[in-house]
Formats: sequence, C-alpha cells, structure tokens
Amino acid sequence: MNTSQPPAATKRIVILGGGFAGVYTARYLEKLLRPEEATITLINRENYWVYQPMLSEVISGSIGLANVVSPIRRLCPRTNLVTREIEEIDLANKVVTVSPGFRPRQLLLHYDYLVIAVGNVTNFYGMPGMLENAMPFKTLADAMVLRNHVIRTLEEAEVEQDAELRRKLLTFVVGGGGFSGVEVIAEINDFVGAVKKNYLRLRNEPHRCVLIHSRNRILPEMAEPLALFAQNTLRKRGVEILLEERLAAATSEKAILKSGVTIPCKTIVCTVPSTLPLVIQDLECAKEAGRLVTNTSLELKDYEGQVWALGDCAVVKTVSGDRAPPTAQHAIREATTAASNIAAAIRGGSQVQFTFEGLGTLASLGHGAAVAQILGVKLSGLMAWFLWRCIYLMKMPGLNRKVRIATDWMLHLLFPPDLAQTKLEPERGIQNQHFQPGDLVFQQGDLGDSVYVIEKGECDVLREEPDGSQKLLATLKTGDYFGEMALLSDQSRNATVRARTAMNVLIIPKGNFDKLRHSVPAFGEIFRELARRRREENVKSERPRDLVEE
Amino acid sequence: MNTSQPPAATKRIVILGGGFAGVYTARYLEKLLRPEEATITLINRENYWVYQPMLSEVISGSIGLANVVSPIRRLCPRTNLVTREIEEIDLANKVVTVSPGFRPRQLLLHYDYLVIAVGNVTNFYGMPGMLENAMPFKTLADAMVLRNHVIRTLEEAEVEQDAELRRKLLTFVVGGGGFSGVEVIAEINDFVGAVKKNYLRLRNEPHRCVLIHSRNRILPEMAEPLALFAQNTLRKRGVEILLEERLAAATSEKAILKSGVTIPCKTIVCTVPSTLPLVIQDLECAKEAGRLVTNTSLELKDYEGQVWALGDCAVVKTVSGDRAPPTAQHAIREATTAASNIAAAIRGGSQVQFTFEGLGTLASLGHGAAVAQILGVKLSGLMAWFLWRCIYLMKMPGLNRKVRIATDWMLHLLFPPDLAQTKLEPERGIQNQHFQPGDLVFQQGDLGDSVYVIEKGECDVLREEPDGSQKLLATLKTGDYFGEMALLSDQSRNATVRARTAMNVLIIPKGNFDKLRHSVPAFGEIFRELARRRREENVKSERPRDLVEE
Repeated sequence: MNTSQPPAATKRIVILGGGFAGVYTARYLEKLLRPEEATITLINRENYWVYQPMLSEVISGSIGLANVVSPIRRLCPRTNLVTREIEEIDLANKVVTVSPGFRPRQLLLHYDYLVIAVGNVTNFYGMPGMLENAMPFKTLADAMVLRNHVIRTLEEAEVEQDAELRRKLLTFVVGGGGFSGVEVIAEINDFVGAVKKNYLRLRNEPHRCVLIHSRNRILPEMAEPLALFAQNTLRKRGVEILLEERLAAATSEKAILKSGVTIPCKTIVCTVPSTLPLVIQDLECAKEAGRLVTNTSLELKDYEGQVWALGDCAVVKTVSGDRAPPTAQHAIREATTAASNIAAAIRGGSQVQFTFEGLGTLASLGHGAAVAQILGVKLSGLMAWFLWRCIYLMKMPGLNRKVRIATDWMLHLLFPPDLAQTKLEPERGIQNQHFQPGDLVFQQGDLGDSVYVIEKGECDVLREEPDGSQKLLATLKTGDYFGEMALLSDQSRNATVRARTAMNVLIIPKGNFDKLRHSVPAFGEIFRELARRRREENVKSERPRDLVEE
Repeated sequence: MNTSQPPAATKRIVILGGGFAGVYTARYLEKLLRPEEATITLINRENYWVYQPMLSEVISGSIGLANVVSPIRRLCPRTNLVTREIEEIDLANKVVTVSPGFRPRQLLLHYDYLVIAVGNVTNFYGMPGMLENAMPFKTLADAMVLRNHVIRTLEEAEVEQDAELRRKLLTFVVGGGGFSGVEVIAEINDFVGAVKKNYLRLRNEPHRCVLIHSRNRILPEMAEPLALFAQNTLRKRGVEILLEERLAAATSEKAILKSGVTIPCKTIVCTVPSTLPLVIQDLECAKEAGRLVTNTSLELKDYEGQVWALGDCAVVKTVSGDRAPPTAQHAIREATTAASNIAAAIRGGSQVQFTFEGLGTLASLGHGAAVAQILGVKLSGLMAWFLWRCIYLMKMPGLNRKVRIATDWMLHLLFPPDLAQTKLEPERGIQNQHFQPGDLVFQQGDLGDSVYVIEKGECDVLREEPDGSQKLLATLKTGDYFGEMALLSDQSRNATVRARTAMNVLIIPKGNFDKLRHSVPAFGEIFRELARRRREENVKSERPRDLVEE
C-alpha cells in the first residue's frame, strides 16, 4: 500500500467503516487537506456505501438493486479503499490489522490519525434458533436475500398442497418497530399484495404480515400522534401489530414470542437488537454500554489528538449534553466535526465541537404513505410520502444516482413490480438448527437429505404404524447422531424424529456427508458402525424386517 | 396441483424447461387453446426466463440485473409454473418427478402431452480443475457471480503488493469464441477498462483479456469476412485471441491450454463445452449424439402424438434435412410448430412441419461495435451495433422490459458503469480443488484456514530455511491429510506444501472443521491422533523444537 510509505511530512489518516460517518469523514478530509498533507485510507468490508433510508425499497424492487448503494471509490476519489474485514485495532502501536484476501496473509496498516466509525452489528445472543432462522436487515446482501426469500415462499406456496405449510409460507414476521422494521414490513406487505395476482392459486389467498414491537407504540423516535397514525395506516393495509412483545426464539417453522405466543411462519426478519462489532468489544479503552466514549470534539477518551470515534459505535454528546441519536443526519454532522478537527491537528488550529441537534424524522409506510416531523412540523399521509421521497432523493450524493432513483420510481409507478427470483445460494453447507419441544425434525417417508448430530437436547424416534398410531423406537440425547441410515442406503426415512426438549443440532447435508466419508474413510466408519448397531437392535426388538434398511 | 385433477375432458400439457423453446410453446398454447381444453404446466428451475442475447450486458451493468430476465408468470399468465428441478421423466407412465421444496417430498406431475425443452448444461468432464475454477455463463446467477468476481479481482489487485499476483488478478480468460464467448470477453474488457480509473493504483496498470477458440477463426456461425472483422476489432481494443487452442485444465492460479501453454490468472470463464442434462441422459429413447431424435413435426421418435422435443436438447431438422442451429430465432419457430401440433392432437387436425431456415446472425463486440448478417446482407461496426440493439430490443416481449432496457442503455451512455460488488457468498463450505505439479498449496507463514485431504496425487511438505533453501520434510500421497496442525493450535503454517504430481484434494475450511470436531468428537480424534504422530516424528528427526507447534 502506498499509504504505508508516504513522504515524511505526509500524515497517514486511516478511517474504519464505510457508513455515513466514515464516508462523509473521507469526503470532507479530501476537501480540507491537500494530497501532500495527508493520505486517506478507508477500510470497509464492501466497496460501496449503503443509502440506509432507501434500503427497504430493494425488497419490492421499486429501486434497482445497484441504485440504493454508491461505490465508495466514486464518492471519495482520492481515498485509498481497502475492501477487507478489520481484524484488530492496536491503539498503542497505531496499527490496524485487516483480513487476508486471495492469499491467506494479513495486512497491517499504520496510521498517524485514526477514525473509528464501524457502526454496530446484529446480535441474536440468548435467542435460541434466531441465528439460523431469522434474517438481519442491514446490508445490500441482506436486502437481496430477503427479497429472494419472499419470492421463494410465494413460489413454494403456489405448488404446496398442505394447507398448513401454505399458511406458514404466506406469513411474514418482522421484529422491531423502529424506522427499519416499519419500512420493511410495509414493503413486504405492498410487494406480496402486488405480485400475488401473478400466482394462479395464491391470488385469492390471504397473506399475513406481523410487526412485533417491545413498547406500547411503534416509532419511539417520533411524536405519539404520528406513531399512532402510522399504526392505523399499517393496520388498515392489513399489517398486524403486536405491541409489548418481543421475539424470543425461532425454529424453521415458527417465531416464538416472549409471552409464549408462537407464529407459524417461514420468514422472520429481525431489525433489533444490535451489538458492537467484535473488534470494538476487544478494544481496551473507555466505554459506555460497550460504545466508545468521546468528548465533544469526538476524540476518543485517552487518545485525544490521535483517534476520533463517531457514528453508531460511539457515545457522542452534543454541547448541551444530550446523546446524539444514531441517524444519518447526525452521522454526517459528526463526520464534518471529526474531519475539521483532524485537519486542525495536522495544520495546528483550534478544535470545533459537535453541536447539531437534529432537523426531524421521517418514516415511509409503504406506497403513498409516510409520517414526517420536520423542524417541529408534523405531517402524515401522501404529503409526507412526497416529502420523504424529495428529501431523501436530494440527500443522495451525485447526479448519477439521483437520476437513476428518480427513473426507477417513475417506472415503478407505471409497471408492476418485478418478481424474478435470483437463486444464488450454492450447495447448502454444514449448519446448525434449533428445535422446540414437539417440533418435527423429519417424517417417516421423507427423502433422506441430511445427517443430524445432537449438540444439546433430546428427541424421540417414532414409527408411524399403518393404523395411524406412533410407536416409540428410541430416545436420543446430546452427542447422538441420527438420520444416517437413509443416507447410507439412499432410501427415504424409515422413522419420524420429534424433539422431546429444546434441541440444538448440527446438520450435515448429503453432499458434504458423502464427500467426507469418501475422502476420510474413518469418518464414514463412525456412521456405518452406528447404522450396523441400530439394525441389530431393531432386529432384536423384533421390528418387522421390511422396515429395516440397507 | 390443480393440474393433477382437471375435469375429465381437459387435457394436461406439461412443458419441461423455461428457455425460449419452453416459454414460447406455453405462450402459443395459451393463445391456441381455451382453458377448458387443456391445463398448461411449465417446470423450470427459475421463475424467470433469461433473454440470453443480452445476458452478457449484466457484466458491465449496462442493463440492470432484473431487466435481462422476465418473470415467466407474466409471460404466460395462464400457465401453472412449478419452480423446481426436474428429477425424472417416465415416458411409459406419463409422469414427471420434480425435486422437493421446503419439505423433503418429491412431487409427481401426470401429463397427457409432454414438451421436452430442457436445453443443455455446462460440462467440464475430463478437464481437471475446471469445475472448481472455471465459471460457466448460462444463467442470471452465472452473470452476477462473474460480475462480482471481476470487481473482487480489481479490489484485491488494488491492495495487493505482490506484482505477480496483481498480474494474475488483472488477467481474464474466456474459453469459446462463439457468440457467447465473444460477447463476454468484449464486455469484461470494456468494463475493466472503464472502471479501472476509479482505482488509484490500477489506473495506469494494464489488464489482459484472452479469448481462446478451437478453430482457425472465431464466430464459426458467421461468414468469414465478418468473423475477421470481429477479430480485428477485438484485437484493436486489446483482447488477445488464441486460435486453434482449447482450455484443458485449470487451477486456482492459472488456465492450462491443450498445447501446454499456461496463462496465470484468477478468472476463467468457459462458454463451451456443453452436454445434455442428467434427466435426458437417463431417458431411454431414440437419441443422436445424446440429443432427442424428432421428426419434422417435432414429435419424439416412438412417442408421436404424446411427446414433443425442441430447443437445444433435441435434434431438429427442417424439411430440407438441415439441422436447425441452437439459436433463439429457431427455438421460437420450433415452439410455434410444437404448439400447433399439440392443439391439433387435442382437437384433431393435421400436423404442421418445421420449415424455418433462419433470418441471420448478430454478435456484439462491446460498446459501439458489432457484426451482423441479416437476410444475406453483411454489416459491421457502429451501424451493426445500432441494428443489434434495435432488433433485440424489439424482440424482447412486453412494453415494461422494452422501456426499462432502453432507459438502462440511455443512462449507461450518460453515466459511468456501476462498480458495487454485492458479496453474497455465505461461509465457504467443503469443496474440491485441483493442483498441477509444482503448484503451491500453501506457504510457510500463511494463516491456517483449512484442512486438506488428498483424493488423488502426491505432494511435498517443505520447510523454508532461514538461508532461503527448502528442506523436504515428507511426501504425502492419496488418502493422507495435511494442514490440521495450524488449525488445531490456531497458528500459522509451519511448512510449505507443494504438489508433486497432478493432485485432487478435498478442502475442509476451518469453520466446518471446528463444527464437526466439536459435535462429532470421533472426527476430531482422527486429526488429533495424526497431529500427535507428526509431532513425534518431527522430534525424532531432530527438527528444531521451536518449529514444532501446539
């Protein structure tokens, strides 16, 4: 990297994170400093910046995928962009370690001045099954995955004959009633409603959209009358809103709420809760609830003049002492403050303080409706929706994107939303899964597509008798394997398996299982031996021969 | 499926495949038959139809991702679409088996009339390492994956310090000089050339685009003067064209040609060769070079009046006895013929014969250049390019797509191409890889990120001595494992591993390895035992202690 060997007088500025805070800091630094004064390097996992306020529009396709993001190289043409993961920040030695690329070697970046703006990440700690079954909604990839998943559920519901499974496929649950959650449920509801008519069997079937929020009203950042207007609008459009509830756990078949209520569904989106990235958790410095503590010049405590922290990973307080909320408008003002102060540190000069108090808030409620609260004025309905679109379009940097988004919106008014499902998932790999007591793992007669290892919990192996009754064949517990017989003999399942307690399993799909047992014979032997023992036990227990496989 | 229980008089038509042939057959059948005469069901892996002639434009983003495809449900509103894989065709019992969806149960579809139009698939048989390292180019997902891969190589080249690796990252190889290969290399060349200036270090570095073709000139379907014009145009734009050559093998670091020439690169696209899908290979009926044999009414031999075969999976001959080439214009005419004949079979009436002889051919050579040969007239350059765009825009069905594509083209003329890389790959799973003799598997000092199992071949384990020499520690062969020591002790590689012969390995990434050894202790034991033996051998061979890990 040329950032590592600048001329002696040239300072090295490293910015961590490519969200509003990081990208705007780089943009202001490019304006404030001459190339010979400082090199600017920005590290971000992606090579683009996400325009978060419009991200939910990707779900319905009302904005094209690529138009809701902007390449960081074009936004900050003089900045060295490193598209890797940040692995370690060493404040004492002033060096940042980033992840390897095509070759398994790490890269070290030395800095004179550091800006930490890494944001936060979704965290499902303490919520069983959420990691495996709930989808986060933060990145462009998240939005694409959700969009394709929703289309897949419609495709499957169209073919599915089981009425119960069809209802699950047509139920969409979103956790969190903040801006993001409200916009996501509104978009899903609009999109499913609009494209359902292209499905011959679904066009007359109802779909169910549920928004779950922990407080007694949604949109806590807005004034109560606007939040109530938003609730009414969403409910009129068919969205169920469950207040004073939380997502507590999930399986592949249902969402489980804190009250014990379960919602059978195949789609769970979670927009809360969030935590700090690991690299911040590992950092030893002053923190408040995990967030980095800064002064009003946005300098990190104990590293003044060297490190600035801003955005969602920092506690930023204005001169009046209030905490700045984690919104785009605040992040942009924090970026100007930090950039000015870095320029002052390089050139000498006095530090400026962060004084921004916010201009207002906006939330879209789907096509043709929004709520807005701007400089004290409250607006709702179609007017607010126009305002929402105008304000966010104006704030999108660059003429290119502005024109493209305006064009997308126009075409979206003229033509129905697109429903092409881009299947990008490669072969399914080894994964974890969570089951609640009573959940079916698989049913007798199903195709054998995976082997299961119980990491924690117990399950019953049952045989479905011709008269419809079930006979308990065995109970398996932590450390046991099952499902290998159908895979080894390439037949369908010869028993039903049902969770007895809450159970976590490791699922090894057939493709991986076959690769492993062919290349590592000792691995296959573990399961062949088990299958042999099971067959013997079955014969001993006088199980009818025709149910014994291989 | 409601197609399974139609009123007694209603016939069940099942169409396999959603390419030009399948979708146009459904469209014509919807026009020819009343709903009470027949139900139409189409089975396709995707819920969209790909407009193949424009697919390569996705690479540069000159057409938005979603605009190069069209939802089949909108193209054929009366057709039941089943978005699953076709697993088996049973001609005797008139039933098609499709893959399971969310539940592991297969679905059976009975038919009275069957249309087989499943196309062909990419096939790397007999070409070591191609499956793992070469990218096909057939589906929308292929185009997206290629686009994102190209952007990733640019991002990595920008950061990479090793000049040799940087050259590999900036080399792009395409196999096959037919329409698809020519359009892909032209698009990659245009795209890389256009976005390179946004990369501070790459803007002055050359990139290399190589097209490999087996004959003595590219575009064999076109007249020689046009093909030579195309070769000249591409070469003037910087594309290297290697004639009378073929891709023979590939590793993650290079393409290996039939002549023995190797091209160090990180991007290989293969547009040849192709084979028939497994479901056709398994079918017992009359075939010619694997393709289904039909008469001039497009009926499958021995199943006349029941089964029609068309498109790239069938041998279609016109009344003049020539074989119809596998192009879109022919597929569309085959579809009208098949649809008319099915309608005649239902209502009674005489069969029509396939007589279309082709209107001409077109190939795009990148921005502002193309070659065309239409109704005997030959055109090249800018005029041909305009013609190419006009003809294909006109042929795109539906006003919606026409407007969207025209808009995309206009915006593409005004603004630079987009370069956002949408990272969608989940955690890397268990995979195969191929190495050629002398290839490095990993180097001493690399991060330990995987365990390797040798499926076939031999490799040397070498220690890099401080004086720069290498000491041979061991030679491993088929069935041996290596790389486990760094994973078990979480350190970097303590030796270099280099392939001694051509070698196939199974790679188990750290994430999967750790999951397996924690859940299946016997699996971890296999490797712990091996690591223990290796340490003992190292100590015995008086290897310096400080190089022994764990």
